[in-house]
Amino acid sequence: MIEGHGDDIYRYEGKVRYNFSSNICNLPFDERLMRHLSGHPELLTSYPEPFPGSVEAAIADIEGIDAGNVIVTNGATEAIYLIAHAFSHGISAIVSPTFSEYEDACRIYGHEIIHIASLEDIPDEATAVWLCNPCNPTGKLYPIEEVTAAVTSRRDRLFVIDAAYAGYTPLPVIGARDAVDAGNVLLLGSFTKRYSVPGLRIGYAVGDTRLISRLRDFRMPWSVNALAIEAAHFLLSAKDTGAYTIDASGLHDEALRVKDALLDLGIMVSDTDCNFMLCRLPFGNAAGLKTWLIDNYGILIRDASNFHGLSDRHFRIAVQSRDADDLLIDAIRLWMSL
Amino acid sequence: MIEGHGDDIYRYEGKVRYNFSSNICNLPFDERLMRHLSGHPELLTSYPEPFPGSVEAAIADIEGIDAGNVIVTNGATEAIYLIAHAFSHGISAIVSPTFSEYEDACRIYGHEIIHIASLEDIPDEATAVWLCNPCNPTGKLYPIEEVTAAVTSRRDRLFVIDAAYAGYTPLPVIGARDAVDAGNVLLLGSFTKRYSVPGLRIGYAVGDTRLISRLRDFRMPWSVNALAIEAAHFLLSAKDTGAYTIDASGLHDEALRVKDALLDLGIMVSDTDCNFMLCRLPFGNAAGLKTWLIDNYGILIRDASNFHGLSDRHFRIAVQSRDADDLLIDAIRLWMSL
Repeated sequence: MIEGHGDDIYRYEGKVRYNFSSNICNLPFDERLMRHLSGHPELLTSYPEPFPGSVEAAIADIEGIDAGNVIVTNGATEAIYLIAHAFSHGISAIVSPTFSEYEDACRIYGHEIIHIASLEDIPDEATAVWLCNPCNPTGKLYPIEEVTAAVTSRRDRLFVIDAAYAGYTPLPVIGARDAVDAGNVLLLGSFTKRYSVPGLRIGYAVGDTRLISRLRDFRMPWSVNALAIEAAHFLLSAKDTGAYTIDASGLHDEALRVKDALLDLGIMVSDTDCNFMLCRLPFGNAAGLKTWLIDNYGILIRDASNFHGLSDRHFRIAVQSRDADDLLIDAIRLWMSL
Repeated sequence: MIEGHGDDIYRYEGKVRYNFSSNICNLPFDERLMRHLSGHPELLTSYPEPFPGSVEAAIADIEGIDAGNVIVTNGATEAIYLIAHAFSHGISAIVSPTFSEYEDACRIYGHEIIHIASLEDIPDEATAVWLCNPCNPTGKLYPIEEVTAAVTSRRDRLFVIDAAYAGYTPLPVIGARDAVDAGNVLLLGSFTKRYSVPGLRIGYAVGDTRLISRLRDFRMPWSVNALAIEAAHFLLSAKDTGAYTIDASGLHDEALRVKDALLDLGIMVSDTDCNFMLCRLPFGNAAGLKTWLIDNYGILIRDASNFHGLSDRHFRIAVQSRDADDLLIDAIRLWMSL
């Protein structure tokens, strides 16, 4: 997947002025976090906890569940790989298009993979369902009622619900308590998305203690480094303070404004409930548009052609400031007129 | 393994004044590293490279090998788990007693495990041999000639040689170039041990391109966080400067001095070639000694009873300053006289 993910900003060092390619909502940078970390030099010179139980306890406390219901991992990605491992050789239905790591992890651990277009298409034989909700790359959210109906209709089936983008929608979502009570749900959370800290790699899974304990049987020690553990505590404490408040309604409103403008240009746009959306060009291809935008405007978008089931005309954007969004719309309009 | 590793200093917050429990040699703390990291806030807010190719290239450059011969991992631990995974269901001979992660990783990936006492005891059916060289917990080094003889005698067998402690012995060791040329060796390296930065989690494996490429097939993206990647570049540049020079001869001389003093007390001590050693009490048990030392002196040692094949009388120490070492010897003498 090295060639395919969003935010490949490191490939365009110095050229990117507007980064629409990552679907992380840009919180105002909080310099207190780096200052806090730099005040703790022992984070470099002492081992971290082998397993980050202190962070698991802190999340459990906030969510009103037990620490045994939480496993903190090296990004949600490690949780995805642990789940694929713990339930290896299963039959995994993946609601697609979506984040490619579900499929990659399942493939490595010998799953049979079935791509499905919606929760209504789950084949009877599926032992696990992977759902990104809200969905990357479309931004679409399955409402709580639909998710709950699917989960309760088959208690013998595992539902992996990636809630990485839950903070980016104004709509209600399945919570940690719901996941634990369901018994057959593993709910993934992402510090990367919630706190705009993709460099740190902290994520977690929440679920019934038997499920979490099964994941723990497969994890390696020290996978979350000491700086990430300390940062997690800092961020959980700062959760509801100014710097980390996400204006999901405002972001979604702006997304709808941009969507309308792109529709006017003849571009197809997904029904997003978030700050990002999937787009399909009426002609040309996303790779060409991407290169042109970076060369002429320093604008980086996400070529979405490598998502399963999508074409070379698909790209994804996440809204930025109103001015930057207007620049993007104008630039795409110009490219389409060339 | 959460209960068993060394440097469980986080359990004794505020009580530890002398930490003999970790076998990491204490380099003088270099505050430039944290200062360097804190000058790069984008390390928090941007994704790291999905796979740390820039660090692989830097290591290859230093070692005079190709980047395709190196895989950089989330500590050497991730390399251990990747190897166990890539060669799953093998027959693994582990030269013991040793670091428990080889066995833990092999067990998770369905290996048959055979503990052997030395390189001379490798059973014919073994498909892989795991050797920590110098060995944790004994500090003993197999000389290059013996390792080479074992490796060349069976080209169809994988040799995993963990060289984490290679910088801690004044004796010559197998190098990266040797590992690549051998074709059937995966040599593990550890920033944790080489640069005294266990909090960061950076390690690597070096070997033939086919072996390394096989490991790459199984790794997840973003396992090394952005701070660790940046730190790796900083440390590789600073490699041969004052703060990161290890006086292996001086450390070993001090280890021999401490060893003699402990032998005088009737304690059995391993033939160490490094800065640390395995000790066996003539009576009592290591857990009792450990508790007494922390309570009375703030001295932390490593209870080694959970290493495969060792008893409750075994503990491990790494030498510290001469004064601290003398205090340890005096304290143990007093405990034995009680």
